[in-house]
Amino acid sequence: MMKKLIPNKQIVLNHYVTGYPKESDFGLRSSTTSCTLSHGSTSSAVLLKNLYLSCDPYMRHRMSDHISHSCTIVQSFTSGSVLVGYGVSKVIESTYPSFKEGDFVWGMIGWEEYTLITTPDSLNKINFTDVPLSYYAGILGMPGIAAYAGFHKICYPKEGDCVYVSSASGGVGQLVGQFAKLMGCYVVGSASTKEKVDLLKHKMGFDEAFNYKEEHDLGSALRRYFPQGIDIYFDNVGGHMLDEVILHMKVHGRIALCGMISQYNIEKPEGVHNMFSLIMKRIEMKGFVENDFGHVYPELVELCIKYLQEGKLVYVEDIAQGLENAPSALVGIFYGRNVGKQVVCIAKE
Amino acid sequence: MMKKLIPNKQIVLNHYVTGYPKESDFGLRSSTTSCTLSHGSTSSAVLLKNLYLSCDPYMRHRMSDHISHSCTIVQSFTSGSVLVGYGVSKVIESTYPSFKEGDFVWGMIGWEEYTLITTPDSLNKINFTDVPLSYYAGILGMPGIAAYAGFHKICYPKEGDCVYVSSASGGVGQLVGQFAKLMGCYVVGSASTKEKVDLLKHKMGFDEAFNYKEEHDLGSALRRYFPQGIDIYFDNVGGHMLDEVILHMKVHGRIALCGMISQYNIEKPEGVHNMFSLIMKRIEMKGFVENDFGHVYPELVELCIKYLQEGKLVYVEDIAQGLENAPSALVGIFYGRNVGKQVVCIAKE
Repeated sequence: MMKKLIPNKQIVLNHYVTGYPKESDFGLRSSTTSCTLSHGSTSSAVLLKNLYLSCDPYMRHRMSDHISHSCTIVQSFTSGSVLVGYGVSKVIESTYPSFKEGDFVWGMIGWEEYTLITTPDSLNKINFTDVPLSYYAGILGMPGIAAYAGFHKICYPKEGDCVYVSSASGGVGQLVGQFAKLMGCYVVGSASTKEKVDLLKHKMGFDEAFNYKEEHDLGSALRRYFPQGIDIYFDNVGGHMLDEVILHMKVHGRIALCGMISQYNIEKPEGVHNMFSLIMKRIEMKGFVENDFGHVYPELVELCIKYLQEGKLVYVEDIAQGLENAPSALVGIFYGRNVGKQVVCIAKE
Repeated sequence: MMKKLIPNKQIVLNHYVTGYPKESDFGLRSSTTSCTLSHGSTSSAVLLKNLYLSCDPYMRHRMSDHISHSCTIVQSFTSGSVLVGYGVSKVIESTYPSFKEGDFVWGMIGWEEYTLITTPDSLNKINFTDVPLSYYAGILGMPGIAAYAGFHKICYPKEGDCVYVSSASGGVGQLVGQFAKLMGCYVVGSASTKEKVDLLKHKMGFDEAFNYKEEHDLGSALRRYFPQGIDIYFDNVGGHMLDEVILHMKVHGRIALCGMISQYNIEKPEGVHNMFSLIMKRIEMKGFVENDFGHVYPELVELCIKYLQEGKLVYVEDIAQGLENAPSALVGIFYGRNVGKQVVCIAKE
């Protein structure tokens, strides 16, 4: 049995958050992690050196002291404790047979330099390293599963479908649009700046894109890009946008509810008033979480790596440098400051 | 060629309706119907003597001069013209090979004593007459298809599911609850009077029922009857009820949107605020209309007639007598005055 004490910088939640999160809601703590890996014991553990942290909108819920709409899928962070989220790490010590020193893994880790994982079967081994390791916090990680499963398993897409994606340049949206293009769909995305709109049109291959902040009348914008209506809406924002899009759906349209980032920082969610159109147009609206779709991961990896190598798929990341800059990166996604998938690099291999 | 002039009393829409419909929105007109049935010509027609009219909530939309949320499934009535709706009739003359004098049919007819149908393939022949003919305006007509398809094809029910039905004693709701009981589900319905609640519990076999008007806190009522949550919500009312029910759904629950009668007479529909729960609970919400499910009609008829004969299914009707009382019956359904499926008998065979 070895006894270790490792100096470990950590990002902690100073207190529960109301409204938009601020950098001051988080703190940087110089701590020491005591870890004991008992080789040969029945309990297995893995000690990780963390490399990349993923900044994801769902983390906002965990910053509240009670998560509204009772659900079992996410729990509040503990105030005063280290944040937890998806990330990419290197195994530096292991008593778990499936992982050995030097392996790379992705999964739920602490926002800290080192994490001791006592339930290592929750980690995913990274077998292919000819792509940036950070991709395992994005296209080849949770956001990739959300995009792939949400589009292919929830939306029933077919060639020629008219697809609308909101928050389209984000970690999930940019993939949904590209998956849709690869299927021969007509794809339009919306985002919050000209830079992102340009990315969508010129780098990610969307047919059209628009800056929703410049549209005084969202309905006109949707009519302009979808004169015949929308077959598939991949919703990352919720609220008023969702309400308006319903009016522009085609008969038998499908709406995948992936996230509602426009609603996370407001006290009372906006009401969706156009529900009756769901009946008249026989629309299917389905909420989903990527946790239910772990089984699609192998096909996602195979497909994405093939397309990445062939240059048919791109993935745009916004990489902040240094653990001390992680709170600012996380806060930034709620203001749309990130251009592409927001990750934080806290160490090179 | 015969030329006929038939005295024909008709119910007309006096003017388009705002808010709740009133009896004065409708008029009784003594008219004469001129009909010419050309035997041997290429065009076929059927002259019907109308027996039963069905009063259905969706008709409210047709009373408005513009139907909000552009859709192709229903059109506005023509102001000053005769109302149209589902009904049961007897063929008194026919140049259409499939129907002969004396046949009974159901389908879209005028709110009048006699209707000349020039597109007779839209009518359904009634082959089984050992049940009240009025059933073809209810359990064996459109409401039956809505209940059967909506429950079995939209909700994916399975034995033991916890099922909630709103507007549960109406023409559709009472069937949904009984179909669910026949599958071995736990079924709770809500209605607007004690009389209806008693019917649900003691005649229609619901496990539980409650008067939503007597519940100050809908959430408490739902928690009382569904301590573990709801698997299936069959929504006939929309609005605030739908918003509240979402909070009480189980993970992977299903919501069939059949109608939203609470919203039809108000200017701006109530907002549904709890949409984010659809994601956290991975809920599928699907709008449907019975028009898409004509193909289930044969199995519906076979099943219902069998269960009716075996006494395993009941169908409660509220039958108004006389065409002149049709407007009052129609208006009444928007105030919940009907007890059971509202039909109007305008003639015996």
